Amino acid sequence: MMLRDSTSICAPVHQPGSAITVIRVSGEQSIEICDRIFIARRRGRIVNERGYTLVYGDIANSEGDVIDEVMLSIFRAPQSYTGEDMVEIACHGSFYIQNQIIRLLIENGASPARAGEFTQRAFMNGKMDLSQAEAVADLIASESEAAHRLAIGQLKGGFSKEISSLRTELLNLASLLELELDFGEEDVEFADRTKLHDIATRVRDYSEKLSSSFSVGNAVKRGVPVAIAGRTNVGKSTLLNGLLKEERAIVSDIPGTTRDAIEDTFTIDGVLYRFIDTAGIRETDDMIENLGIGKTMDKIMAASVVILVTEATLSPEKIRAEIESFRENMITGGKSLIVVVNKTDMAEADAVVRIKELTDEQDGIPVVCMSALSDNEYDELRTTLSSQAGLPKLDNMVVVANARHYESLRNVEEAMKRVITGLDENVPTDLIAIDVRQAIHYLGEITGEISTDEILGNIFRNFCIGK
Amino acid sequence: MMLRDSTSICAPVHQPGSAITVIRVSGEQSIEICDRIFIARRRGRIVNERGYTLVYGDIANSEGDVIDEVMLSIFRAPQSYTGEDMVEIACHGSFYIQNQIIRLLIENGASPARAGEFTQRAFMNGKMDLSQAEAVADLIASESEAAHRLAIGQLKGGFSKEISSLRTELLNLASLLELELDFGEEDVEFADRTKLHDIATRVRDYSEKLSSSFSVGNAVKRGVPVAIAGRTNVGKSTLLNGLLKEERAIVSDIPGTTRDAIEDTFTIDGVLYRFIDTAGIRETDDMIENLGIGKTMDKIMAASVVILVTEATLSPEKIRAEIESFRENMITGGKSLIVVVNKTDMAEADAVVRIKELTDEQDGIPVVCMSALSDNEYDELRTTLSSQAGLPKLDNMVVVANARHYESLRNVEEAMKRVITGLDENVPTDLIAIDVRQAIHYLGEITGEISTDEILGNIFRNFCIGK
Repeated sequence: MMLRDSTSICAPVHQPGSAITVIRVSGEQSIEICDRIFIARRRGRIVNERGYTLVYGDIANSEGDVIDEVMLSIFRAPQSYTGEDMVEIACHGSFYIQNQIIRLLIENGASPARAGEFTQRAFMNGKMDLSQAEAVADLIASESEAAHRLAIGQLKGGFSKEISSLRTELLNLASLLELELDFGEEDVEFADRTKLHDIATRVRDYSEKLSSSFSVGNAVKRGVPVAIAGRTNVGKSTLLNGLLKEERAIVSDIPGTTRDAIEDTFTIDGVLYRFIDTAGIRETDDMIENLGIGKTMDKIMAASVVILVTEATLSPEKIRAEIESFRENMITGGKSLIVVVNKTDMAEADAVVRIKELTDEQDGIPVVCMSALSDNEYDELRTTLSSQAGLPKLDNMVVVANARHYESLRNVEEAMKRVITGLDENVPTDLIAIDVRQAIHYLGEITGEISTDEILGNIFRNFCIGK
Repeated sequence: MMLRDSTSICAPVHQPGSAITVIRVSGEQSIEICDRIFIARRRGRIVNERGYTLVYGDIANSEGDVIDEVMLSIFRAPQSYTGEDMVEIACHGSFYIQNQIIRLLIENGASPARAGEFTQRAFMNGKMDLSQAEAVADLIASESEAAHRLAIGQLKGGFSKEISSLRTELLNLASLLELELDFGEEDVEFADRTKLHDIATRVRDYSEKLSSSFSVGNAVKRGVPVAIAGRTNVGKSTLLNGLLKEERAIVSDIPGTTRDAIEDTFTIDGVLYRFIDTAGIRETDDMIENLGIGKTMDKIMAASVVILVTEATLSPEKIRAEIESFRENMITGGKSLIVVVNKTDMAEADAVVRIKELTDEQDGIPVVCMSALSDNEYDELRTTLSSQAGLPKLDNMVVVANARHYESLRNVEEAMKRVITGLDENVPTDLIAIDVRQAIHYLGEITGEISTDEILGNIFRNFCIGK
């Protein structure tokens, strides 16, 4: 992986079919390679251009046939995304043109870039640490304000500065510990045990705090999983469509920004909610034939919030019993339940009042009486969903949303706990040193100060081509 | 349509989901609008930047929240695509980010751009004529070398210079003709009749030449339509897959360039061939149950080249009879027929020799004996297809590939024929003048020297957003 540094790489940033496609070229030779296939208009050769310059002209093959009129963006190391010399070629978004230009670049010495290779080079060249590189992928995938806020926070440095400085403190202490080991039998203590205890506690607490934020981070990044349950024909699909509809209306008033395949997600106060396997609901409305059986149970298990839909046309007592039975059989710890009593438009006004009275006292489960057919009655449900999801305000909170970081942090936490116990119980220095080294290793993995080809491969393989 | 000139417009150039999305902003206020939402790194405000400059920094909302780290390309009128001041914002390709930036631009005074509006402004500002604007759309859609060559030729000016100069000559003569009409009864001839006859002949010939190239142009642009016919189980689907396979292998050796949905097309010598409704062939192989009935006939009617597939396991006499019957019943004028005698691997070698001998004399229909299962036996078929398609070399040929141009040229041709006949038969000047005016009008439509909102609307409506 490290051997490619001196080759120049190239890849299209976009799928063809847009008006414009950008092809990226990065590496020592990138400007020279592009110079060979490019004829500038009104300017000299691009090898003489400064960085941060745009140049207009033609891409032509060696026979002089013009492939396309393009705009080149010239970047000079280290002031570029990868930290290397770079050229971005903006050409017309035709499949044929894109292929021809990539072919010409390869013929002139560039190699096709692997997925994530540009960002990997940025990491290798010290333009960003590993958690920032990962934030790039998160940023591209961000679908909600909250997920975006997490990603941009991480891109701007996030907790990696803090991790890095804790790691440096540990490293200093580890050196002292190892110095002690070198002196073997002499029983000297270079490393201040109180200081070590103190830093181990701080690292443990910080790791604990970060790793415990992962469930929030994960919900924010992937969306809060919501399931809709209820008997056939209570209006589950109408309710789902009602919740999704408002979101789509917001989206579709900006031309050109509509997603091709809109998933079953919507946002409340910038937080993404994701319906679990709702395709079924919308197709048939028959998802739940027998409550508590098989698939339905699985779906409910995977949700953080469950919406039980029932009907105002039932008696308040029946509704109460249904809620009770559902709560007892289907809701396990940590899951929130919301009851929607649908079809209030089909019930008597005083029946609705009685339902509200009777269910209001019930175990603190929020009950929303509404008609899923009326677009104006969703506000209370949205507010209730938002409060039941129980996500804290993210404004100044440091949150871990990356499973790899979470795992490393848990390892750090465990190692630090062993160090603290070891110190308390006067465990031999060599055993403590091992745990300190482990914690240093795991902290380093987060920021990339320690990285293996395997870790890098795992991270960058999931990037898109051209990034 | 013309009223929007002073507003600034914005639109994303790409669908979200790529690593990078570019958002275009064009118009007098575009740089100022972007200045309000952009904080440069290491540089001053972008309102002070020269054109052709790249600036790196953050897009932030009015509360100072950073939406994304972006790269701006600054262009100053008239040195830009639209001929106006322009900014291109390259942001991370997230749906959320793209929406937020478009929102900020609109809040700060930009309007969402209609499809093709950037190119329309380029046309309005004299950056390109109408046929060049149309070439932009063709270029983006080009899938083969030949289609690409046509489009880039047209983008570079193509025949519009010639059209424009013929039109100017006609215009001068028309003025003289109308001057004669002003002098009414005096019977003077300002316009030299010989000269008029000469130019009318030249315009007629040129229009004729161009419009007769349309069938070639259309085939090049859309692909030469090919149909595969034959009885069940003769190997139609294997043959089709064999023809498509090589193409895909060529395509897929460049990472990141594979099309999502590959159509049933392939290229030979840079020319695109397009199979007509071949989905059916590949699914069932049962397309043709009864030759000459209904759907099959329709497909064959729409093809320029028909490949009849039969089997070497039949007797040469039977094959001969089958070809004869097919030709008589299914092939009408202008269509080319190729016979593939498939499954040579399952027949005796001397049987194949006899088939070749017997069918060789048959009405000049090319017969290819091969095994569709063998990847190496397609060369002869490809060469035969290419020669039967009968497309001329396009190297220095001026070709019309646009239906709108074709229609205008046909109108010019008709008008010029009437002028020539009129001159020969001494028709009154006022009648001749009408036809000359008409030809001038139609010639002007091609280059856009004459344009109506309707024509412009039709052309630009088919562009993608962001172009």
